Parts: sequence; structure tokens; C-alpha cells
Amino acid sequence: MLNGERRIARPLRWAMVGGGRLGQVGYKHRIGALRDNTAFQLVAGAFDIEPERGKDFGVNIGVSEGRCYPDYKTMFASEALREDGIEVVSIATPNGTHYEICKAALEAGLHVICEKPLFFTSEEGENIKALAKKKDKIVGVTYGFSGNQMLLQMRAMIEQGKIGDIRVVDLQYTHGFNSNDKSDKTSDAQKWRIDPKVAGPSFVLGDLSTHTYYMSQLIMPEMKIKRLLCDRQSFIESRAPLEDNAFVMMQYENGAVGRLWTSSINAGCMDGHRIRIVGTNASLEWWDSKPNELRYEVQGESIQTLIRAMPYLDEACMADERLGALHQEGLSESWANIYLKFAIAIDAKNRKDEEALSNLVYPDIDAGIAGIRWIENCVRSADNGAVWVEFEANKELSSTQ
Amino acid sequence: MLNGERRIARPLRWAMVGGGRLGQVGYKHRIGALRDNTAFQLVAGAFDIEPERGKDFGVNIGVSEGRCYPDYKTMFASEALREDGIEVVSIATPNGTHYEICKAALEAGLHVICEKPLFFTSEEGENIKALAKKKDKIVGVTYGFSGNQMLLQMRAMIEQGKIGDIRVVDLQYTHGFNSNDKSDKTSDAQKWRIDPKVAGPSFVLGDLSTHTYYMSQLIMPEMKIKRLLCDRQSFIESRAPLEDNAFVMMQYENGAVGRLWTSSINAGCMDGHRIRIVGTNASLEWWDSKPNELRYEVQGESIQTLIRAMPYLDEACMADERLGALHQEGLSESWANIYLKFAIAIDAKNRKDEEALSNLVYPDIDAGIAGIRWIENCVRSADNGAVWVEFEANKELSSTQ
Amino acid sequence: MLNGERRIARPLRWAMVGGGRLGQVGYKHRIGALRDNTAFQLVAGAFDIEPERGKDFGVNIGVSEGRCYPDYKTMFASEALREDGIEVVSIATPNGTHYEICKAALEAGLHVICEKPLFFTSEEGENIKALAKKKDKIVGVTYGFSGNQMLLQMRAMIEQGKIGDIRVVDLQYTHGFNSNDKSDKTSDAQKWRIDPKVAGPSFVLGDLSTHTYYMSQLIMPEMKIKRLLCDRQSFIESRAPLEDNAFVMMQYENGAVGRLWTSSINAGCMDGHRIRIVGTNASLEWWDSKPNELRYEVQGESIQTLIRAMPYLDEACMADERLGALHQEGLSESWANIYLKFAIAIDAKNRKDEEALSNLVYPDIDAGIAGIRWIENCVRSADNGAVWVEFEANKELSSTQ
Amino acid sequence: MLNGERRIARPLRWAMVGGGRLGQVGYKHRIGALRDNTAFQLVAGAFDIEPERGKDFGVNIGVSEGRCYPDYKTMFASEALREDGIEVVSIATPNGTHYEICKAALEAGLHVICEKPLFFTSEEGENIKALAKKKDKIVGVTYGFSGNQMLLQMRAMIEQGKIGDIRVVDLQYTHGFNSNDKSDKTSDAQKWRIDPKVAGPSFVLGDLSTHTYYMSQLIMPEMKIKRLLCDRQSFIESRAPLEDNAFVMMQYENGAVGRLWTSSINAGCMDGHRIRIVGTNASLEWWDSKPNELRYEVQGESIQTLIRAMPYLDEACMADERLGALHQEGLSESWANIYLKFAIAIDAKNRKDEEALSNLVYPDIDAGIAGIRWIENCVRSADNGAVWVEFEANKELSSTQ
Repeated sequence: MLNGERRIARPLRWAMVGGGRLGQVGYKHRIGALRDNTAFQLVAGAFDIEPERGKDFGVNIGVSEGRCYPDYKTMFASEALREDGIEVVSIATPNGTHYEICKAALEAGLHVICEKPLFFTSEEGENIKALAKKKDKIVGVTYGFSGNQMLLQMRAMIEQGKIGDIRVVDLQYTHGFNSNDKSDKTSDAQKWRIDPKVAGPSFVLGDLSTHTYYMSQLIMPEMKIKRLLCDRQSFIESRAPLEDNAFVMMQYENGAVGRLWTSSINAGCMDGHRIRIVGTNASLEWWDSKPNELRYEVQGESIQTLIRAMPYLDEACMADERLGALHQEGLSESWANIYLKFAIAIDAKNRKDEEALSNLVYPDIDAGIAGIRWIENCVRSADNGAVWVEFEANKELSSTQ
Repeated sequence: MLNGERRIARPLRWAMVGGGRLGQVGYKHRIGALRDNTAFQLVAGAFDIEPERGKDFGVNIGVSEGRCYPDYKTMFASEALREDGIEVVSIATPNGTHYEICKAALEAGLHVICEKPLFFTSEEGENIKALAKKKDKIVGVTYGFSGNQMLLQMRAMIEQGKIGDIRVVDLQYTHGFNSNDKSDKTSDAQKWRIDPKVAGPSFVLGDLSTHTYYMSQLIMPEMKIKRLLCDRQSFIESRAPLEDNAFVMMQYENGAVGRLWTSSINAGCMDGHRIRIVGTNASLEWWDSKPNELRYEVQGESIQTLIRAMPYLDEACMADERLGALHQEGLSESWANIYLKFAIAIDAKNRKDEEALSNLVYPDIDAGIAGIRWIENCVRSADNGAVWVEFEANKELSSTQ
Repeated sequence: MLNGERRIARPLRWAMVGGGRLGQVGYKHRIGALRDNTAFQLVAGAFDIEPERGKDFGVNIGVSEGRCYPDYKTMFASEALREDGIEVVSIATPNGTHYEICKAALEAGLHVICEKPLFFTSEEGENIKALAKKKDKIVGVTYGFSGNQMLLQMRAMIEQGKIGDIRVVDLQYTHGFNSNDKSDKTSDAQKWRIDPKVAGPSFVLGDLSTHTYYMSQLIMPEMKIKRLLCDRQSFIESRAPLEDNAFVMMQYENGAVGRLWTSSINAGCMDGHRIRIVGTNASLEWWDSKPNELRYEVQGESIQTLIRAMPYLDEACMADERLGALHQEGLSESWANIYLKFAIAIDAKNRKDEEALSNLVYPDIDAGIAGIRWIENCVRSADNGAVWVEFEANKELSSTQ
Repeated sequence: MLNGERRIARPLRWAMVGGGRLGQVGYKHRIGALRDNTAFQLVAGAFDIEPERGKDFGVNIGVSEGRCYPDYKTMFASEALREDGIEVVSIATPNGTHYEICKAALEAGLHVICEKPLFFTSEEGENIKALAKKKDKIVGVTYGFSGNQMLLQMRAMIEQGKIGDIRVVDLQYTHGFNSNDKSDKTSDAQKWRIDPKVAGPSFVLGDLSTHTYYMSQLIMPEMKIKRLLCDRQSFIESRAPLEDNAFVMMQYENGAVGRLWTSSINAGCMDGHRIRIVGTNASLEWWDSKPNELRYEVQGESIQTLIRAMPYLDEACMADERLGALHQEGLSESWANIYLKFAIAIDAKNRKDEEALSNLVYPDIDAGIAGIRWIENCVRSADNGAVWVEFEANKELSSTQ
């Protein structure tokens, strides 16, 4: 149970790049990082591409005016001069800028927390990983939904054999908010997502399905994809070559099969983020729209609905509990959970406590690279005519995680 | 609204082949056919492969002992000699016997109602179709779930443009009752389903997904599959080459995409028969486990749940209404609906009223052949390594339905 | 498991009074009685207050013209003269006529099945009970929802101590179809329901809540109401003195408390028929709108949803199973279940097998009188200013059931 | 839309009395108050009845050691001497201490935020109200569930006539965590709740139903109770005279009727906090367990589910929106919403902006007194034998709110 008491010696001095007034995601970072004021303290920022608006915003959320910077370079340089300078920075900018900002941050000696999809290529990912290793720094990736502790319950139950051997994996992350092209023209947040120069090689595969793919790795770390086939479409033609809908089929090394549907043209769908894992004798099912529940279906028995915060849950799940039974948690707790783990990881890294680090489950640089590889494999299949391709995975991930 | 009053001049004299005490499906045929006693009258049967048990059963459900026959050949021959002999026969036997019984029935001058999947090959289907045409007889196929009138509501709404142009089709028919191989050894009903000699070239593709595929044709008759890819598995190895799980991906001629999951190893799943159709501005979703509901999701509007029997439904849906609002209908009404349409079709055929026939929407011989072709295309793809194959459809179906 | 095979030696010769073309309930009786054609055979009827329409209707549902009678008196007299005359009659007419028709039927030597609420007064009920006893005949009451076998599952689980001692009973039967007074003026079926001369002393208390009250008795036969308080309203004033909404509070002899809400002005409510029984360590909840499910909530454990037709259900529940797992049942099966029990009861009575009779759980004359008493107690409380009244129950029911 | 930007000039200097390590509710206060760090800043506290544990806890959540006080009296005295002393205090202690702490806080010139139920008697409430007026200070009450903005959507829709005139109010707040008496003996948090000297005249009526009663006032401010009847029970006898279950029936001045069920012995119930308002032509229904949804049922139309964050919602609802569509909010946002309103109210009071204050909808001292009166009326009825009593309401509330 978490109650806000400190888990590290003192809050980390934290800054943001991006995440200003116009976007939606910056607030989620702050809600996550600042839940308890014992893990992070927001002391600086380059919140906006438009400096004045960024400064006005920064002051409004409590950052001192002098530490509201016009751009990340100025911020890294200026903060480096302060004794109480920032220690860690979160990057909540469009995809195409992640790499250079990550690189600069690491080179400035900062820990990094970055939005997904991390970069355009896995090669970039490996570069950053090497740099982070050299600099002895953490790179965390904000798979924001993955902090929901019911996923850890799934992980524990699968590990404990509660569903038997995995046979079928069914993943979905779909919505319908881009069913027409209105926001393509009017929303800054949408415009860049369908511009390959800024978004990278994919739209919904990167924007949506990397979350779900990571969550599937989180809950079943032993499962490795062997082959994959992806068919992607641009139902709004002007989005081509980027897809607004994709189907993926997977074959795992253990003989299991999987599929994933990601879409932003699933008109009217408000509950389309779902994970079902089918084992030899039972299944587990999670819906993001019911974040306080988990469905456990044992063949031949009554259907069970597990409820968040109840004592029958696994200790790994209960460790992230905050509000207690009858009290609904949601996405803000999910973000708070992963940000707390980022803080603990950074603290362990600072203390050179590699054992603590190795026991900590959180979305790290490998998870970020795995997300890029997921996209690469999907795009490679799709662009070759939706054919089966051998799955190329992170080497480290394959061997150790 | 239906209230049991006759829709044809008098009930048809009806017999069954199979459907005796040991199987589960025979009762569904009788519940469907005899709902009102104004469409069919059960007067004869060869209910069981074991004649004495069949006779005992027949007498117990009210058939006179003299018309409980040891086998279908005897029945067809004997009944042909009676002035009040049977006019139509339902075939509820294992798949491998459908063809010869259908053929014999048509040659005996009977209308035929047959279980799905109809036959092993579409060629057999075309043969029977030609024979039925020659004999001027109806062949109906018992896609028993397809009589749920909420599917007609979907069909009407799609035709009326209520969801826009179709983009994505998501079909599922899965359960978990064969998660282990216990029933493979103990249940007669299961044994033959995994024996290619009796079941034909597929298990769940034929046993389950042909229902859902027909239902998808019913609700969106304009949609034609162009290419298809199927990956099938035998998680219980002794079932090979027949599959207990399969994924299918589809590309339609209009640019839409689809997918289907069928499985009998989806452990614990009790609500796995679902259809979702996504259009440019809204979606429709139907779950067999909630047979009195339809979900209508317009992008940007509140989610609507349409309830069976309510006056706002389309007249095509309301035409099959029986019990009225607040009164739950289920699978027995679904079967009653299709059997009533079989009776109306037979009556029209007898009266040579081809116009009435052409206006009647029911699972006919073309729907039966389409189901076989569905399996053939899926198996062809799967057995070539889960590759894309051009979809071969019924010629008539493609051009006219 | 039921499969339509006969449970009695031959179908009973059955007639209906009322239940013709204009009403909704007659079809439910026929669906229930004629499900398998092995329990009842419809051979005569006085279906309509307008004889010609009744005859036309009767012929249309397969009754021979000569046995379509202009009124019940003629029918009872004429059928008495036939060797193959009717043995049992169902009464599906407005409340105010039940008593005289029941009486006439019993005096004509017929078994009787009658709509609820049975009569206006419990005294009438006791008279009919005495007459039925004298005539050695059955009087069954069509609490049509009570045949859902999941209620027997509740009964079994409660009897087996699966929820502990009962503390709270929460009953509801509400809908919103009379939210305005339109149908009061246009619908024949509604007009009489709000006319005290035809409907008796209550509207929704009798029309709706007697169902739910009986179902509560069925699932917890040991529970006796000690005191009761009812507040009833006529939100559409022209319905006064009859109520379109009522709240009831109950205190049971064992210290448990209960409440009931019945209404036809619960605007928009389509799922308002519900029963929840709270015990010392668990609860059971049933919703008529989900007739294939039962919710079993053990304090401190994961929530269980029991699904109809599954082997883990009690044998008392499974005894009424027809369609098997994955196949939804609904109200028509519920009616079929109670009508089959009426047939078995009548057969036992005819054979003077009182032991079989005493073991049979079905809505009998005592259940009918209990329903009247329920209304009487509620009205007595309400009309005295919604005060607590001591509950007056059937004497026999209190002591023996 | 809220994004964390300041709504008042600077964060208020805030302290807590109670809310330490052992209780569950303190964290909810902090999560609510400190969501954005722009409304409140936690600078002091007397967190625990055991001073050392309280100090350790305070330091662990970031309060400087010197401002972790052994008791509230010391805190008020010491902080009064500081230039940067606290301005507002939250009281999260057992009920029996609220009055004296509130009084002391107001007398120390502090604004007050207090747990519910506020005090034991409405007279105490009126005293505090008078004192707050004299001191020109705000007293807020933490009805923590009431910040869910879907309740404001209900309020707006009712005000706009979307359901017509209100006829029926159905309130429920039940759970089963006290089904047995285990926690009565082992849990400090439970022990005092069933001790009249600490808890006051009620257990669940105060602990649970005051929330729901306030929420009903929030969503339908025009509705006034005229008469009320309450039947309360102590199923665990050692809890007597305090109740663990109660039924309430209400009659409103406009002719509507209502009922409420509150319980902590509703075994297994995890979704028992619900509000349904029935109007002449539609109903609205809210379940706390589905905090991102609202059900809108118009009689005769398809059922509508409104989803949080969607543009079709009323601006009053959208004003409290934080995370955006597809992103689930929960109880922490609800607390953040009411705490933000407390801050805005305190700021307006400090600025003597009575107009801003009068336009602000939040749980104020009148809402707190109304909660006490609710309990008083219920207890008065229950203790007189569950009889109808005329409802005594706040005078000001009756005339002006």
C-alpha cells in the first residue's frame, strides 16, 4: 500500500521539455510525477515551442519564472550551472524530437523520462541505450497505461500457472476519434501524428499499439514473438503512408498465437483498450475502461471478477495500491505508479544499487526499444504486402528479461 | 409481430433424420419447427443410428410408432407410399452424411433442411443446388443463431446508411469447451467433429465460424471478400489436421478489412459470439450472449443500446417479434424464426410464387454453399502456410445477392 | 435436462379462455404449454370476448372451428359432452373475471391454470381452494417469470447455506411504459388494469410485484414476513385510487428486513426486474434482463457469475435445462418450465399420487392466494397512511410450506 | 478543462489534523488538496494521536520536522506566531472530535475543511456556522465522492428539464465489509465508528449515507424532503444502538417519493453506491463503480450511456475535466475537484468576493449541517419505531439553496 510517504531520500529535481498548455499529455506527466511530492519536484521547464506562452504556463503551475526556459538547450546549459540544478527531465514533445533531446539530456548528465514511441529507429534506441550506460543514467518510457496494478496481478497469476500455458493472446487498442479528417486539419496534436517527418514510420501502431504491446510483455515476460504479419490501412487517404488502422497476427516461440487490432477509426468505440490471455485451462481479461477489475475465467467454473484493492490479490499488485477498496482508481494512479518507479530506479542508479534496479519492473530503455522494434516489424510486414516476417527483437530483451 | 397464427395454409408434414436422444441439436430443430404448430407438424423420423433407441425416442416425443424408421432410406421409401407422407425433412446428423441424405431426400421429392456445414466441398453444394432446382425444392440450412432479429436491425441500419460506409468487420465465435481433450474421448458428439472423415476439412471453422460468416453476409449483403488469410492451429495435437483455433484476416472489395477468430480452446469464454461492424461514422455491435440488445455507437455521441421489441426498431426486425418488451427472447426464438421462414419458403415454392421467394431472406442453399466456400478458402490459405489467397465465392451469390 | 420427451403418459387436452389476438399474454401461455407437444394439446378455446374474432384466431392457431367457442360457459358445457373433451383450461382474461371462470371450470370438473393476480380477495382464494380440494383438481397460477431455473439455483444455494442466514431481501419489478397516460386511453390491455372494477384493488402491486413476491417465496421458502409497510402513489392522477408506483418495506420473522419497489413509471427502465438476497457471508443477485446468469458475491472473495447450463449448477436447476451451454434461454423457457410442472401436477393429481405432488415445486393455489394476501397487506398499509401492519399470511402457507 | 494551472493567486498554506499513517482517509485529503500544487501547500500537521509517529509520518511526506506538531492546540498556537503560518486546516479525525477542533481552528482565524459527518448535532452545526460567519471564514465538508463531475452533468440535465419533473429518487450506499464483527475488534478505524461516544448517533447513516444524501441535494437542489421514515438494524448485535443497515423512505414536497438503502453488511457488494433519478419522461442513473459513465434512459428511446470528457456534456461538467476522453478518472479526481473548489472559496472569502462565493457549488457548512440533520431525522424516525416524521431541514437551506 502506498500512502505518499517517501520511498527515496528526497524528491528529485525535475524538469519538463514540452507538455505545455496546448497539449494533453503534459498534465499526465505532472499528475504522475507529483502525486505525492516525495518522488519528484518540478523546478524547471521548457514547456512550449513558443517561449512566452511556455513561461506564462510554467509560472502558472508553480515554476519560478527564471527557470522557465525558451528551449531545452538553454535549460540544460543553465541548469548545469546551478548547484540545485535539475537531475531528471521528462520529454513530452512530438516523436521526431525525442532522439536529439534525449541525447542532449544524457550528455548533460540528466536522467531521462521520454514519451513513446521513443524514436524512429531501433538503431537510435541502441545508441541512446549505449549513451545512457556510459553516462550511468536511467531512461524511462511513459507507457502510461502500464502502471495499472491489475496488470501486475495478471503477471503474477500467469507466472503462478493460474491459467496454464499460454495459447492465445488477444490485444486491442482502438478508438474512433479520427474517423473523419476534421482534427487532421484543426488540431496541432493530431497534425504531427500523421506527418511521417514528425511522427515517424507509423501513426496508430506507434501512438496506440506500442502501449498494449509493452503491457503484453509486462504481463507475460516469457513470451517471445517468432513471426508476425501486419496489414495496415489509411482509411483517410491523406494520412498515407501512415496508417489509421492495422491488424497484426503473431506466432510465438512456444506455439501460441496472437493478434492485435489498433485503430483510430473504430467509430464510436470508447472501451477499445483490452487484453485477453488464454491459457490451457483459464483466461484473464483486462479492459482499460474498467481499470478496477480483472476477469478470470476458468473453463468449467463460474466466471470470476477480481476487484482492485481486495486482499486476495497478489502482493505485487497490492504493492501499488493507494485508495483502498470501494474507491475507484484510474489513469492518474497508473501514471503515478510508473513515475514512482522511475524515481526509485533513478535513486537506485544514483546509489549504484544495481541489485535493486534489476528487481524493479518498469518501462525502461529496453522497453522503449522493444516498442520501436514492434513498429519496425509491423511496418516491414505491412509494406511488403502484409506478409509474414521473422520477428527481430532486442537482443538483451530476448535473452534476459 | 408474430403470435403463432398460421402464415401458411396448413402445417407441413415434417420428419427428422438424426436429432435423437443423445445429441443436443435435435431439440433445437424441434423447438424451432414446432414453436406454433402452424408451420410444421412432426409426423415421422429416423432419429437415431440405433433404431430401437430412435423408435423409443420418437414415440416419446409424440411420433406414432409406425413412422419411427430405422434409417432414412426406409423412411423416404415408406413415406413416399403414404398419401399423408412427409413433405420436408430436417437432417441433423454428422457432417459426413449430409450429402447423401440430402441427395436422397431431394430425389424422394422432399424439401430439405440441413445442418451446417452443409457438405465437405462446394462442388457437392453445387450438385445439390442443381438437383434442388431440377426437383423444384427448397434446401434450407440451419444457421440457428442467424434468426435473432437484432441482426435484421443491423442489416436495416447498415442499408439505411446509419453507420456510413463499412470499414472494419470484426467477427468472433469462440468458446473453451475443448480446452482439454477429455470430451474428445468421451463424447460422441465431439468425437466425430475432430475426425476428418466425418467432420470434413475443418473443426471450428466449420462448426462455429460458418454461423458467424453467414450472419455477416446477412447483415451486410453488399460486402464481398476479395482476399483472405487464415492461420489455424491444433492446440490439442491429436486433433490435427483439424483445427481447434483459427484466426482469419479479410480484405473486402470495397477496401474494408475484416478479421475473425474462431476457437473451442478459448478457456472460460462464455460470451464469445460477437459481431462488430465499423462504418465511417458509427459502429454496430451484437453479442449473442446479450441477444436482446444491440449497441449503436456514433462517433462523438452518447452510446446507444437498442433493446429488442421497442417501437423504434426497424419493421424488418419487428416482423420477427414475439414476446414483447421486457420479455427476454433467446436461441429458441432464433430457431423458430428461421424455421418459420423455411416453411414460408417451402410454401411459396410449392405455390410456385417465385416473387415471394425472392423477397424472403433466409439461409438457403446459396448460404450453405457460401459456408462451404468460406471453409475451403480458409483451409486453402492455412494449408499453404497462412498466406493470402484470392477469395473464391459462389458465382450466384457474388452477382445477385 | 429436458429434451421434449414426454414426462406424462399423454398430452392433456387443454383449452384457453381469453388469450386471443389482441392481448399479449395468450401467446406466452401457448408457448409455455405447447413447447414440446408432450404435455398439453390445445383442442378448444373461447379466445376472445368477440366470438367471431375468437373463432378466426382459434382456427388460425390450429383449433378446429367447432371447438372455438363464443364464451367459456358454452365451452365448458359443450366439452363436457365429448368423450375427448378438455381436461384443463387456462384463464388469460382480465382480473375481474378470474373468480367466476375458475369456479365454473372447477365445477365442470376441469383442472385450472389462471393468470395472476388470481382474484380480488383472499377469501375468494380460499373458496376456490376449498372447491379445488373438493373436486380433486389442480389450480396453477402463471407466475411466468418464476420458471427461470436460475431461481431454483438460488433456492438450492440458500438452502445449502451458501450465503449464510438471510439478513436483507431486495426486490424490484419496475418499468416505465406507463410514464404518461397515453396507453391508458388507447390500449385495451392497459385500460382495464387501472379500473378497480376489473383490475381489483391494485395496479402495479398486483400486475408486477406479485410475480416478484412469489419468486422470493420460491427461493427462500422459510422466510416469513412479520410486518410490512407500503407507500403507494398514483403519479398519473386519473389512475387513482390504483397506484402506478409503490415502495414496500418488510420485516421478517427471523429479524431480516426487506424492501420492494414496483412501478410502471420508472421512465426508461428496461432491466428493472431484480432480486438480491443478502446473507451473513454472501449475496445472490438475479436480474430478469440477464436470465442466463446469477451473481454470487462472497464477502472478501472475487465476484462470481454463474452461467446457466453449466455442470457446477445444482441438480434442481439443471433439471429444467433445455438448450445447453452457450445457448441463451429466455422467457419462453420459463413459461415452458412452469407449464410442464402444471402438467406433471395434474397428472399426479389424476393418478392420486399425492407424494409426487407434495414434492413438486410450482405456483399452486396457495401461491396464488399468497399473492392476493400480499396485495391485501400492502393496500391495507398504504390506505392507512403507509403505516406498519402485521402481515396476514395464508394459514397453510405459514405452517407447512 | 483543468490542467493544473493556478486558479488562485498562490497556494494556500495548509495543515492537517489527523490523517496519519494508520488511517485511510488522510491520503485522500492530500491527493485532493495537492493534485496540482497550485491550490494548497502542505506546511504543517498534527497527524497522529501519537506524536512521534505523527512527526515521523509528517517528515516522510515532506513537512518540515519543526511544523509536525504533537496536537492541534499546539499547532494552532505555534502557527499563529509565524508570519508564514497556516491559513487553512483539514480535520480528518474521528467524528467526536470534529466540533472542538473546528471551533478552535475558527477561533484561531483559520479556514476549516472537515470530514463528515460534521458533528453530532445540528445545534453544534449552527454554532459553528455562526462562528464561521463571525470570523469570516469558510467551512468545507469533505463529501469526497461528490466531486465526480458526472453528478454536475446530472444536475445540469435535471435543471434543463431533460428528464421532466422528478417523481422517484432511489439512493443506495452499501457495502459488505462489516458483515461479520472481525474488524470491530481488530481495526482502529472500525472500532470508533461503532462507539456512540466517538461516532455519534449513527454508524452507516453517518458514515455512508450522508455522502449520498448530499450528492442527491447537489444534483437536484430544488427537491425538499417533507416526511421521512427510517428503519435501522444492528445485525451484529454488539453494534447496537448503532446501525449497520438502514432503509429510509422519503416523501418530497413536490409529491415525489424516494428511498435510500445504506449498509455495511451487504455481503460481497462492491458496486453499491448508486443514484437513480426518475422523471416524468426519462431517468438518470449514476454508479460510483463506473465513475466515467452516466446512464440516460428516455422512455421509448434507446438507452444512452454518456461518457466522461465527451464534448456533448454540459459545460458545468466539462469545467472539472482533467484527463480527456479514453482516460479513466476516479476518486482521486473527485477529491481534487472539491478541494480545488474549497481553495477557490477560501480565496474568494479572503478577497471578500461574495458574488463569486455565491456562484460556487461546493460542500459548505450548510451541506455539513444538512448531513447532520439527515441523520437526526433518520434516527428520530427509527428510534420511534420506524415511523414517519416531518423532515426538519436547515432553515437557510430550505429557503435559499
